Amino acid sequence: MEIKGISTIMITPFQENGDLDLGSLSSMVRFQMRAGVHGLTILGIMGEAHKLTELERSQVIETVVKEVDGRIPVTVGCTANGTDVAVYYSKMAEALGANAVMVAPPANLKNYELIFQHYAAIGRSVSLPIVIQDEPVTTNVLLPAAFQARLEREIENIKYCKLEEAPSPMKITNLLKETYGQLTVFGGLGGVYFYEELLRGACGIMTGFAFPEVLVAVYNAFTAGDKTKARDIFYKYLPLIRFEAQLGIGGVTIRKEIFKERGIIKSSHVRSPGVPVDLTTLGEMKDLLECLDLSEDTVQIKA
Amino acid sequence: MEIKGISTIMITPFQENGDLDLGSLSSMVRFQMRAGVHGLTILGIMGEAHKLTELERSQVIETVVKEVDGRIPVTVGCTANGTDVAVYYSKMAEALGANAVMVAPPANLKNYELIFQHYAAIGRSVSLPIVIQDEPVTTNVLLPAAFQARLEREIENIKYCKLEEAPSPMKITNLLKETYGQLTVFGGLGGVYFYEELLRGACGIMTGFAFPEVLVAVYNAFTAGDKTKARDIFYKYLPLIRFEAQLGIGGVTIRKEIFKERGIIKSSHVRSPGVPVDLTTLGEMKDLLECLDLSEDTVQIKA
Amino acid sequence: MEIKGISTIMITPFQENGDLDLGSLSSMVRFQMRAGVHGLTILGIMGEAHKLTELERSQVIETVVKEVDGRIPVTVGCTANGTDVAVYYSKMAEALGANAVMVAPPANLKNYELIFQHYAAIGRSVSLPIVIQDEPVTTNVLLPAAFQARLEREIENIKYCKLEEAPSPMKITNLLKETYGQLTVFGGLGGVYFYEELLRGACGIMTGFAFPEVLVAVYNAFTAGDKTKARDIFYKYLPLIRFEAQLGIGGVTIRKEIFKERGIIKSSHVRSPGVPVDLTTLGEMKDLLECLDLSEDTVQIKA
Amino acid sequence: MEIKGISTIMITPFQENGDLDLGSLSSMVRFQMRAGVHGLTILGIMGEAHKLTELERSQVIETVVKEVDGRIPVTVGCTANGTDVAVYYSKMAEALGANAVMVAPPANLKNYELIFQHYAAIGRSVSLPIVIQDEPVTTNVLLPAAFQARLEREIENIKYCKLEEAPSPMKITNLLKETYGQLTVFGGLGGVYFYEELLRGACGIMTGFAFPEVLVAVYNAFTAGDKTKARDIFYKYLPLIRFEAQLGIGGVTIRKEIFKERGIIKSSHVRSPGVPVDLTTLGEMKDLLECLDLSEDTVQIKA
Repeated sequence: MEIKGISTIMITPFQENGDLDLGSLSSMVRFQMRAGVHGLTILGIMGEAHKLTELERSQVIETVVKEVDGRIPVTVGCTANGTDVAVYYSKMAEALGANAVMVAPPANLKNYELIFQHYAAIGRSVSLPIVIQDEPVTTNVLLPAAFQARLEREIENIKYCKLEEAPSPMKITNLLKETYGQLTVFGGLGGVYFYEELLRGACGIMTGFAFPEVLVAVYNAFTAGDKTKARDIFYKYLPLIRFEAQLGIGGVTIRKEIFKERGIIKSSHVRSPGVPVDLTTLGEMKDLLECLDLSEDTVQIKA
Repeated sequence: MEIKGISTIMITPFQENGDLDLGSLSSMVRFQMRAGVHGLTILGIMGEAHKLTELERSQVIETVVKEVDGRIPVTVGCTANGTDVAVYYSKMAEALGANAVMVAPPANLKNYELIFQHYAAIGRSVSLPIVIQDEPVTTNVLLPAAFQARLEREIENIKYCKLEEAPSPMKITNLLKETYGQLTVFGGLGGVYFYEELLRGACGIMTGFAFPEVLVAVYNAFTAGDKTKARDIFYKYLPLIRFEAQLGIGGVTIRKEIFKERGIIKSSHVRSPGVPVDLTTLGEMKDLLECLDLSEDTVQIKA
Repeated sequence: MEIKGISTIMITPFQENGDLDLGSLSSMVRFQMRAGVHGLTILGIMGEAHKLTELERSQVIETVVKEVDGRIPVTVGCTANGTDVAVYYSKMAEALGANAVMVAPPANLKNYELIFQHYAAIGRSVSLPIVIQDEPVTTNVLLPAAFQARLEREIENIKYCKLEEAPSPMKITNLLKETYGQLTVFGGLGGVYFYEELLRGACGIMTGFAFPEVLVAVYNAFTAGDKTKARDIFYKYLPLIRFEAQLGIGGVTIRKEIFKERGIIKSSHVRSPGVPVDLTTLGEMKDLLECLDLSEDTVQIKA
Repeated sequence: MEIKGISTIMITPFQENGDLDLGSLSSMVRFQMRAGVHGLTILGIMGEAHKLTELERSQVIETVVKEVDGRIPVTVGCTANGTDVAVYYSKMAEALGANAVMVAPPANLKNYELIFQHYAAIGRSVSLPIVIQDEPVTTNVLLPAAFQARLEREIENIKYCKLEEAPSPMKITNLLKETYGQLTVFGGLGGVYFYEELLRGACGIMTGFAFPEVLVAVYNAFTAGDKTKARDIFYKYLPLIRFEAQLGIGGVTIRKEIFKERGIIKSSHVRSPGVPVDLTTLGEMKDLLECLDLSEDTVQIKA
């Protein structure tokens, strides 16, 4: 099951008391599919995966896989600083019906031979395709294009890269060149360079932007050959894409507020430690949504 | 001489052989004043200050001060890892007619008492106002709002902050609150959040964006009370502001290309080590300028 | 049950195939008690805790607690980047009979209010004493003495600090001064400054040095009032202490080799990613052990 | 003029008011030569080079070169974040009679092609041999053995490496293997692993340890073929070597205190920002010197 297009990086909804809210998670899955996304990516940083126990991880996977019911691919974040734990997460994902696993290198590991062995061990343990999560800000590990080419060449199920290293457009070109196009590359960075990423050959994007309809419309126009329309939609909503991106991983808070307002999840609770967002930011967000005609329930995306 | 509005962070032009090009520097000063900027900031990171000798620093200051001829304030970057060197640079700036100095903390210095003493020594050595350069990505030093409040309270000539910590809008609110509005704060981050920075109380922005006319138009509309117009101009040119910002300090290359195309400087030479930019990026840039009607010589900014 | 003296940071033994070796773990506990240590610290970095699943964590705790049988205190590392996970680990440790938990701050978290809330949440969730793990190299988080004093003052079960910030002797003085001696401080850094740490008021040390007999002898002489003897023993074995310390977390490999040679564990297997140690290093180690008369089975420590 | 053996990393003496004290600098040179060192390394981190103006740099070089008068090689630190500045420093060093230049990579530069070009430009600008300063803690740049091999192979005057990456013994083996012994490697890390560094093939050490007589005695015994004597001397003074090393770059303060006590320099002034050392540390130091019979004026080193 090929992954491409918009594969939303999902938040993980909690109840006000901090427990998982699996009902809201199902509701979120249904929303994303209504919005037309082409895949879901769960248990990433935006999904607060590092704040979940193993049991909670399995519950999130099960809920999403069941609700999706095979209609779009589900990618599961399986990053861990120990190889055995990453393998354990990956096997769990495969057993529960995931379609791919996404793995960042162990934090602060600068020895490329050890990083290679980490991915190789995961590759041997599952038959699912693996997405390299190229996320230097969080991991403090650079993954040069030539190294990713080695991973793609020597580990059979390394198939994708989800890019967070800036500037992403140039890196897409380098990755495609070094791997002779064999690595399929997703953009990232909150969508701020999505149009340029598509121009450079990205197969889509994995990001948590709270209006996936916008990215879907950009992608669909672009792949239908209408670059001008894709660009016009992208530019129109860029103020919002940029606004959300300013908050980095703090963005989970504001995205949960939006999803709550839209009636998709019940609580905007973020687990600790969570970077706080001030009320003024929420106000600026509402003004921006109004200005872009996004404050209504049903969103019609047009250039 | 109060600093406010658009205080462009200037590039330093070189000849093809790598020598300073003071003629192009004068030409750039004249261009910036024609564009209506309210101040100039020289010898910052974008100005490749760390790639200049002391003599070259003095030549840059002299050239700019002479060309400006007192019409707008000139702020000089005086950052150094040793206090005596920062003091030396600051005294040089004052002697050569600068209106303010801008100083980031010594790189990787985590002891706040030592950072305080650094700024205090500079404060004692010159009578010019000091701009705190809050630049955590380059310095790896966080300057919390409460600490900057102490600097403002206890060191007489600490008057301004130039902000590069993201998210800048929230930090502006914190800085104004902690200092009871006594610290005057400039936005940064390439201008990507300029509108929100103004809403939060920024007095202007210091950034190197290659079309200062755009920022001037946003600022003038905003301070004239027409927020809607300010926002509309800002949103219109946001694709370009965002595009330049993707390159961080690599952006100096592309900005020099633009200034060369516009006939303001003779060579786009960047001193080593310079992050390279690929031809595709330059092509994307040209398309973007065309799309925004910015490829003509005379730029008329309108919403 | 008060913790003081030598609280060995335990390795976690694996079988050659990478599975947990609980038999060797019990054997290691018995060895440490024969060596006279005053406590055990399990599931730290040296214990490869981040490479274990939750089930394996619980098996390690159960095995150690059962073998120790209440004779000396057992401290369990419960560090996690998410507060709920750290709470989950801490409750598990308490339920399985641990005597204390040790917690480092979430990696890269620079917001002290959020760090405070992290510790406060753990403090509310268990009744065990908490050891602050002050480990800036791994976490990239500084914990100034004044901040630790706040933790000690406001969170009832914060009782101890295990120090890894260099230079540790000066920081011990600062911690004791800022907390009016209310925080009990353990040294660290592989034992390289253990004598000075004792002079400064450390209550003991938590470290993984493979000859705990040496540290016990130093500590016992020191607390018996014979500083000269303590110093003489310390200086005598310093070449070895220093040798092991050079390897940092890579030291787990060489320490497992030593314990295997001494017949305490069956395999020196280290889980991936593990920093490799070359054969020359193992040879240098053997020469050093011979030179210090430590290659025999029964070790008699004398000055 | 071949560099080998003990090439002391020199402090830069200041007067109480912070000005350079060139008289004390000459006195220090004479002391080092009386102590039998085989070379001097000036304007390194320990020499507070980043706190000096260009004029002061030239005065330090001139004073040392004149006092040495060709008897031992003088290596000059020429590290700068801009290539042109490093070239400027290097040409200055050559013009003033230095025998080699030492250069660390620009801080935080992760692009190896740009690092290569940096060294290549310096190599083209002077005919002196170049010492690669492998100092990842200060620069945040790793220089893998294979990359240094490329530098040695492709840039004619790259001849030496001064190592600060831990663990240094293993890296020496790697560097000699990758360069087929063509790169001459100096140890570092304050001398804490000097004996092992010699065993691994180091040609000597560059470090700022305040009793160079000790290192000279170790080196002379080792190169005379008496490893046991070398080791015995090394172990005897290890408590002191280790003590100084704990302070890292803060060690400059304590070293200046020692040199002042020994009557070699007039003031222990350290330029700002300087990591402070407490009085207890100075007291511990004095006790240690007494314990090792190093408190007398004339130091006789014996095993």
